[in-house]
Amino acid sequence: MQKKQIVSEKITTAVNTLRVCRSITQVNDFPLSQLSHNRGVNTPDRALHQTVKIVGAGCGDIDLLTIKAAQAIMDADEVVYDNLVSEDILSLASDSCGLHYMGKRCNQKSSSQSAINNKLYQLAMTGANVVRLKGGDPNVFGRGSEEALFLAKHGVKSEFIAGVTAALGCAASAGVPLTHREVARSVTFVTGRTCDDSAQHWQRLLAAQSTLVFYMGKERAADISTSLLKAGAESSTPVAFISEGARATQSTIYGEIECMASLAANITAQGPTLIVIGDVVNIAQEIAHSLAQTLALEPRREFPFTNDNSVIQHLTDHAECVYG
Amino acid sequence: MQKKQIVSEKITTAVNTLRVCRSITQVNDFPLSQLSHNRGVNTPDRALHQTVKIVGAGCGDIDLLTIKAAQAIMDADEVVYDNLVSEDILSLASDSCGLHYMGKRCNQKSSSQSAINNKLYQLAMTGANVVRLKGGDPNVFGRGSEEALFLAKHGVKSEFIAGVTAALGCAASAGVPLTHREVARSVTFVTGRTCDDSAQHWQRLLAAQSTLVFYMGKERAADISTSLLKAGAESSTPVAFISEGARATQSTIYGEIECMASLAANITAQGPTLIVIGDVVNIAQEIAHSLAQTLALEPRREFPFTNDNSVIQHLTDHAECVYG
Repeated sequence: MQKKQIVSEKITTAVNTLRVCRSITQVNDFPLSQLSHNRGVNTPDRALHQTVKIVGAGCGDIDLLTIKAAQAIMDADEVVYDNLVSEDILSLASDSCGLHYMGKRCNQKSSSQSAINNKLYQLAMTGANVVRLKGGDPNVFGRGSEEALFLAKHGVKSEFIAGVTAALGCAASAGVPLTHREVARSVTFVTGRTCDDSAQHWQRLLAAQSTLVFYMGKERAADISTSLLKAGAESSTPVAFISEGARATQSTIYGEIECMASLAANITAQGPTLIVIGDVVNIAQEIAHSLAQTLALEPRREFPFTNDNSVIQHLTDHAECVYG
Repeated sequence: MQKKQIVSEKITTAVNTLRVCRSITQVNDFPLSQLSHNRGVNTPDRALHQTVKIVGAGCGDIDLLTIKAAQAIMDADEVVYDNLVSEDILSLASDSCGLHYMGKRCNQKSSSQSAINNKLYQLAMTGANVVRLKGGDPNVFGRGSEEALFLAKHGVKSEFIAGVTAALGCAASAGVPLTHREVARSVTFVTGRTCDDSAQHWQRLLAAQSTLVFYMGKERAADISTSLLKAGAESSTPVAFISEGARATQSTIYGEIECMASLAANITAQGPTLIVIGDVVNIAQEIAHSLAQTLALEPRREFPFTNDNSVIQHLTDHAECVYG
């Protein structure tokens, strides 16, 4: 607990300093400073002047929080968080802040959306400064808009604070671009937990000729592979599985559409896995190979890799799949 | 200059504090601390051990920078930035940091990609700690991968640092979700400056049944509207134009696909405009209307809007277009 206190105090100082800077440069007027912090006063009047902040916690480490999100968490009286939010991020909350876990996990006991909605409403009605903290970005598969809609229907304002969604965080940390000139001019984010398994759905996804990014797709990798192949995808289309992206435990496995089931079966990571499908995956490998080739001209040099040193490891492990 | 010094010193303190916290909680080992800072020593050996950081500056205000990006800018010896990066963000750089504008603007004199690539390489070869700073996220229409590939081919490592891409930042600040259950299960980011104007291209985009987000699409709004209608889009599909998103000057205009040309012509903002097309736009309006309706039950209360108080203004201005 002492450690947490030290952390909390230090980060308070840090964010206060950032605020002073902001007022000097007049970058913007952060509305938080105008909110009152008297809580526990149970009047609808107060609740109606409060704003529930629906905040993206980013993907992975605390470093990928935005400054705005970090400020919101530190100023919160109550934080309602889901299962993708790390303890490190929660440690930004003040000691007096109430922390409410209301997560959803595959095949495990989970909070219902209506329970979450009600919790947010009830907390807002106490006059508390409420933060709803979600992994990634609240507007990409985060169901933030459902919560905002529920709150609005009950007379409570909300505000979204953007976060680095998994596709961006994983692309950066694994060195896989999402668009690349003459390779992919658009990118589509899809949830792996789609309800629509019709052939038409898959044909449409494929038709867009975007880089496809599947969130939470690991468990359905075999289905995704079969469906894409049936819809006419090239079996050799490159695929990257990025597990526990943008965390110290990140691992990446490369392959092709036809091997997705076996590749997924080899993933031991417990955290979320993102799947990137498209020719951009080859660009990531070209970057890594170019660097390796150039630097190999210099003997005795340590072998560095762009962004993700698991590239060559997995190229070797899955050689039969990756390059024929 | 004195003001800039004060800002710089205060933010240095803030970020150092965050670093101390990080080491206490052992959140992660930030590699920056391991980099040496002797610069101006022109040896290839040093350059080969440096990493050019290709950093997303986020969309809009400094608040939408990630903590990791803020650290990278503060530690940079040289920053090469594009035209979407604000002065406030550049003020995070140290006084001794070299700032190199190499932006690209529509219909204006711009830096060529090869000039940018060469600049990054030359700076890296001096042994300097180089940051390539881009609006949004480097892997979404940022051409970060082209720069990483060029550097790799010349033996220079790079690292991507994710940023809040315009779609996420604008969605949050304008209160427009990008996905919503039973409305849109996927979202596609497209650049408005696409080279492919074939009917097939537009049919494919539409076929995916994603929310469509066009970057830099304002100048081509008339073409986008015509092409989507020709490809079979419903003329009443809702559209939101978000200009200068996530900045104090943000404005949003709502309409339908068939009115896109006239709506775009009404935009006076000089900054970038993002276009969101799909039924999720109705959800944004439902949130605003629900709140307005609920709070109208309480007379004499100030009229608050979710996220974007331009909603009703534009609903009125463009009533003939928005709701028939």
